[in-house]
Amino acid sequence: MSTARLTVDLDALVSNWRSLDAASDNRTETGAVVKANAYGVGIQPVARALAKAGVKRYFVAVAEEGAAVREAAGPNVEINVFSGHMRGDTDMIGDLNLIPMINSIDQMLRHVEALPGHDFGLQLDTGMNRLGMEPDEWMAVRDSALDLNPTLIMSHLGCADEPEHPMNPYQLNLFNELTRGVNVARSLAATGGILLGKEYHLDVTRPGVGLYGGLPFADATPVVRLDLPVIQTREVPAGETVGYGCTWEASEPTVIATVAAGYADGIHRLMGPRTSLYAGDIPCPIRGRISMDLIGVDITHLDEIPQGLTLLGPQQTVDVIAGNAKTIGYEVLTSLGGRMARRYKGG
Amino acid sequence: MSTARLTVDLDALVSNWRSLDAASDNRTETGAVVKANAYGVGIQPVARALAKAGVKRYFVAVAEEGAAVREAAGPNVEINVFSGHMRGDTDMIGDLNLIPMINSIDQMLRHVEALPGHDFGLQLDTGMNRLGMEPDEWMAVRDSALDLNPTLIMSHLGCADEPEHPMNPYQLNLFNELTRGVNVARSLAATGGILLGKEYHLDVTRPGVGLYGGLPFADATPVVRLDLPVIQTREVPAGETVGYGCTWEASEPTVIATVAAGYADGIHRLMGPRTSLYAGDIPCPIRGRISMDLIGVDITHLDEIPQGLTLLGPQQTVDVIAGNAKTIGYEVLTSLGGRMARRYKGG
Repeated sequence: MSTARLTVDLDALVSNWRSLDAASDNRTETGAVVKANAYGVGIQPVARALAKAGVKRYFVAVAEEGAAVREAAGPNVEINVFSGHMRGDTDMIGDLNLIPMINSIDQMLRHVEALPGHDFGLQLDTGMNRLGMEPDEWMAVRDSALDLNPTLIMSHLGCADEPEHPMNPYQLNLFNELTRGVNVARSLAATGGILLGKEYHLDVTRPGVGLYGGLPFADATPVVRLDLPVIQTREVPAGETVGYGCTWEASEPTVIATVAAGYADGIHRLMGPRTSLYAGDIPCPIRGRISMDLIGVDITHLDEIPQGLTLLGPQQTVDVIAGNAKTIGYEVLTSLGGRMARRYKGG
Repeated sequence: MSTARLTVDLDALVSNWRSLDAASDNRTETGAVVKANAYGVGIQPVARALAKAGVKRYFVAVAEEGAAVREAAGPNVEINVFSGHMRGDTDMIGDLNLIPMINSIDQMLRHVEALPGHDFGLQLDTGMNRLGMEPDEWMAVRDSALDLNPTLIMSHLGCADEPEHPMNPYQLNLFNELTRGVNVARSLAATGGILLGKEYHLDVTRPGVGLYGGLPFADATPVVRLDLPVIQTREVPAGETVGYGCTWEASEPTVIATVAAGYADGIHRLMGPRTSLYAGDIPCPIRGRISMDLIGVDITHLDEIPQGLTLLGPQQTVDVIAGNAKTIGYEVLTSLGGRMARRYKGG
């Protein structure tokens, strides 16, 4: 093996789904967000495992991802597409029975003209100004839109990772007001929203990052493990440097292991100076710049040369290395590269 | 179309190869580095286009990439693997006739035992302390290694992007010394090394990033263009915010276009506050945080609503947005995600 190996624990993923499902009461259906290749871990294995566990409703960003879910999870699940009905998507939406979450009057017209009678949902903007109809736009078409029997009305919280943020109750109140009296399933909460409390759960929740072991679901079971194979080791004398640009200099004789992974595998270059890999429980700091396919690691203090070192696992979560790279766990997950071997446990 | 679209200009790529080939004289063979999925743009289309243009020697990071090149470029090209002969790679190296660049005495023993008589190259470390045999290790095995008829001896420059760095002549001198009198092809220069001058070219050069239009090859023709489709637009009143965490607030009425791409497509979250997309030649600044699948863009000043906006192209190179994300063009290229549609022009 000369590439990094990503191990995805599908049992842990299903267990995270069950925990987030248990957070809301039985009147609320718990879906699953599997967009962005299931947050980088593999859309088809994830959709298969969740379907086996009984998940009936999936959310993706674009129609192409919906096609992958349809193939993996079968004909009987509901697949909702956040980008709605985009130009050029009609055939896929129709043939694969995808449900576009309509974002604008333009999209609604396109949908009704192209696929009359085909299911659709509605997305309302309640403050993020990102996706969905604006309140005034919605109020103008609300009656005629409802006459067309949408399957779901949803909005998205902009600050759910910050429980005390005043934006949360503001968006909840506005969404309740915009949907007052409708007889259609309603959804507002992703992982963060689920953790905000029952008033946010409504009819359908849409956990995403929490399924994959990321914050804000602090009690999540880790889902991914990333092991990097050691190519060779060397003793670097004091005064010599390691890696591009000579940015790290050994102050004493140092044993450096070169591992076969780098920023082309989604290990952000920026995390280098603050990040360790692990030999079991022992942290081994990165030395020198992360390069495209290679990373230098200090293993001077180890008793024996390891065959591989661990970047992600029980020792260190996606959120820890995300902080080191000045970003969020979500981006660490979705950056996981196509070159690494993927193994799936359980499911 | 609801995903981002990456257009790769294979004619530009071949033209960059020809320019870098022309920088050295006829005694020097110019290879091509196509590791990391050809720097993110697509290893098989790139290898096919370069093979058609006459390139005979390819460099990859790991054996799995060598398999992709063998399939695309056919049986008659030479494929060199930087990670050398790793545990578990023997079958691939043997069956696909890959040439491992041996990095250590351990690897040399493994290779000779597992595949006696099979071609191999040698990698020497001249100061990066990353890959290759150390000078003392090399001098100890030099005679017996040369008896086995290696096809290539190479090293890699750590500071070639900085022409004035004293590390460059230091590495050149050390490499010349370590290989004095050998009758084997020698290689030291990647893109940066080619630009340092003829004494760095030796027998084989290995251009990588310059082929793909990135620095330090300032005269490169741009190879990639990245267009992001607009999902919808909205008017945001003064005082409202856009995106997660309410980080950007409109100071006047603003038209925001939401485009269907985000950090899951490799558009680093960190570049947001400093980056514009383009409508033709008109820059349109990103507003609010880049999210996983969506970006808000200010199009208030445009005369009409565009169907898409351009992130990479003649208006803005990979190195510009890399600077905005506090990294280098190489990482921007290799981050380009698997979800986007790829189109190849020419080749």
